[in-house]
Amino acid sequence: MKKYDVIIIGGGPAGVQAAISARNSYPEKTIALIRKEKTALIPCGIPYVFHSLSSVDDDILSDTLLQKHDVDIIIGEVIHRETKSIILRNGEKLGFDKLVLATGSSPVVPPIPGRDKPGVYILSKEYDQLVRLRNAVQSAVRILIVGSGYVGVELADELLKAGKSVVVVEKLPTLLPNSVDPEFSNMVRQELERLGAEVKTGTGVKKFVGDDCATAAVLDDDHQVQFDIAIVSVGFRPNIEMARTLGVQLDRKYGVIVDEYLRTSDPDVFAVGDCASKRSCYTGQYRQIMLASTAMSQGRLAGANLFSINVLKSFPGTLDSFATKVGDLAVGVTGLTETRAEEMGAQYIIGRAETVNRHPGKLPGAKKVIMKLIFARYSHVLLGAQIVGGESVGEGINMLSVMIQKKMTDMEIDTLQIGTHPLLTPSPLAYAVITATVDAIMKWYHEPISTPS
Amino acid sequence: MKKYDVIIIGGGPAGVQAAISARNSYPEKTIALIRKEKTALIPCGIPYVFHSLSSVDDDILSDTLLQKHDVDIIIGEVIHRETKSIILRNGEKLGFDKLVLATGSSPVVPPIPGRDKPGVYILSKEYDQLVRLRNAVQSAVRILIVGSGYVGVELADELLKAGKSVVVVEKLPTLLPNSVDPEFSNMVRQELERLGAEVKTGTGVKKFVGDDCATAAVLDDDHQVQFDIAIVSVGFRPNIEMARTLGVQLDRKYGVIVDEYLRTSDPDVFAVGDCASKRSCYTGQYRQIMLASTAMSQGRLAGANLFSINVLKSFPGTLDSFATKVGDLAVGVTGLTETRAEEMGAQYIIGRAETVNRHPGKLPGAKKVIMKLIFARYSHVLLGAQIVGGESVGEGINMLSVMIQKKMTDMEIDTLQIGTHPLLTPSPLAYAVITATVDAIMKWYHEPISTPS
Repeated sequence: MKKYDVIIIGGGPAGVQAAISARNSYPEKTIALIRKEKTALIPCGIPYVFHSLSSVDDDILSDTLLQKHDVDIIIGEVIHRETKSIILRNGEKLGFDKLVLATGSSPVVPPIPGRDKPGVYILSKEYDQLVRLRNAVQSAVRILIVGSGYVGVELADELLKAGKSVVVVEKLPTLLPNSVDPEFSNMVRQELERLGAEVKTGTGVKKFVGDDCATAAVLDDDHQVQFDIAIVSVGFRPNIEMARTLGVQLDRKYGVIVDEYLRTSDPDVFAVGDCASKRSCYTGQYRQIMLASTAMSQGRLAGANLFSINVLKSFPGTLDSFATKVGDLAVGVTGLTETRAEEMGAQYIIGRAETVNRHPGKLPGAKKVIMKLIFARYSHVLLGAQIVGGESVGEGINMLSVMIQKKMTDMEIDTLQIGTHPLLTPSPLAYAVITATVDAIMKWYHEPISTPS
Repeated sequence: MKKYDVIIIGGGPAGVQAAISARNSYPEKTIALIRKEKTALIPCGIPYVFHSLSSVDDDILSDTLLQKHDVDIIIGEVIHRETKSIILRNGEKLGFDKLVLATGSSPVVPPIPGRDKPGVYILSKEYDQLVRLRNAVQSAVRILIVGSGYVGVELADELLKAGKSVVVVEKLPTLLPNSVDPEFSNMVRQELERLGAEVKTGTGVKKFVGDDCATAAVLDDDHQVQFDIAIVSVGFRPNIEMARTLGVQLDRKYGVIVDEYLRTSDPDVFAVGDCASKRSCYTGQYRQIMLASTAMSQGRLAGANLFSINVLKSFPGTLDSFATKVGDLAVGVTGLTETRAEEMGAQYIIGRAETVNRHPGKLPGAKKVIMKLIFARYSHVLLGAQIVGGESVGEGINMLSVMIQKKMTDMEIDTLQIGTHPLLTPSPLAYAVITATVDAIMKWYHEPISTPS
């Protein structure tokens, strides 16, 4: 029996990150990564295979990083576990000291009648299915997208770029539901509509209809939407079957149960990424969220903690940090939205800023920037941020993430030295983070202090 | 005699920022800003008036912010001070409680023979002179730029965009001397050369020659450079004459002496921006540096500290944070460069990363990102960062600035949750800040520990 010190199950980014981190932390250990698929894809690149990339192959996650870090790649499926070994479908048995589960997630298939008819596609993360869908998209003219999370809106943007006629249907009242506040969600909607999409919110799909192939969706409000093909993307669920095979504790909705060091109920098994459960860094409650920002941090931490727990390397809970781009509009969010702050009953103060990302604003390429910051009412700590703007929103939101993770207060942010440049950022006098922070400070600074009686 | 609670002298960004901050901190106070010029310019926008902006007027710093914050604008020149009042050239006398000096800086005029001949221009921050230079640029074909600080390289980039034939001469061995390490400076040089500039470093201008007009520069190495016009931009010196008029302590080289609350030697007089002295946040030593990042932070702090010092609002010394863009290459730097770390005798570890700012890298618009981080050898605190890459370098460097200002260690950075997106950032598996941090960690993590004897 071949034996590895560390075996990672799953070849997506979380698994790869855990493997790299394990290698960096334990240079002497033997490490293997087992995956079912011959090639793994870059999950966040999937919406872009339909137009911006010239094939699904352009979205393949290269094995170079694994090879460079001396990680053996095994294509196979784990079907059974003994205490310190696993058995693959081909009968091979592999010993291990530590296992890392990184089995990812699969698309939710909503129970809509007619969903099995040809013409209705579930947006999958698997190579063969994506190739088939890509072919179908190329010959389609009118495409219905069901669901408007990141993947849904990114797909809409991409299909519009490809010149398709696009309809987006979202059951919840706003696009990007649960992710951004309504005013930001509306900006995304306006951008999609400006680009020619038809957007219907607050109504789901009741059924798909058509003779042999599905050719229309009947909505909850009884309107019909005709289409050549429909693409369903209404979320993902954690892949937990492997955890069952391994005998570790799991939650059907939230995934494999892990502690702050990414340990499962079994001391030799860790879990990271979409398959692992996440708690909010604000409430400690489980969050049904699947983000690269979370998965990468978990992967780095798990890899480092495999053989010796490092108290500095614990996962504080998910921050929910991400960015996306629709048309000319980049959107980023990190930490609490106002919607969630209200749900939590948090006491908060909002700071807002509106500016342009060039100075003077007459420079070519200037784009509007709108920022919303949420501070804790009494501790003044930054809790959350949302931005729309140009391409630098991606790094801008990461700066705000760092501020949140370092528990910075409004007063502290107001004293920062911030670099600016005419071609790269807003004006030094109108830098959005500072303006929005000062806006928040002004809301409490001159208030009369009420003495508790 | 009209009396104001606060009078700010100088209408550039530092003065405007101090005025806004004073208004926000002291809503009941009366505030005036006095400036000599009818209109103030946005200093960092000046290189862009030659091509990207359609006139010098497009670079005017609007008075809207001052008006919105109820700050009186007085066009005039202060020529004399009494204890609690100042006298303008027109004879008007104005009382004050607190004064803020924000008189900015003026271009250094190097003592090069022939510099007074027509055809040689000193790049100025004054409206009329800029209009004249803009006209001269428009009819010139071949332009010599003397000096290659930010302004010099930005001007070169802008004139290349305008189709001019451009020669840059720098006395020191590299472009952007004292600002970035040689490998980054070389990338800027290569980009300027790719765009068609001729770049000569390590040789200054010995003299300008020509009959009536200057038509050539003789360099220190005796080569001659022909030109239609020459533009000299070899740095700025603090405007300290007003400080002399007011009777506060000053240093001819570093500017008005201020403490960490931006107070001068006179308890009623503060100074901010280019005219104020700055100490390094690393060494406490004076630095001859003039940056918007520093000036804005000083302006915000001074405005808040005018009538009551707030111990949380002190200036920790300049971080030297900024970004620029030359051709397709954005460059950012914050904190210590390796060159300066060596000069200081600091013990440090370098971490490097090279990636692309899109993922998959085949997405359109992908640009190479190169990052260098400098960590303290024993405390592991981030000391400095340099990046080249696409437009998001501007916000990327600010994220790194926040990390430095919060004294984050390599281990802490390695655990961060960082958002990524195919169209906005590098891949989650190759995010440059993390890769460079891990590179630094790897250099000490597996080293044998030597016990001091």
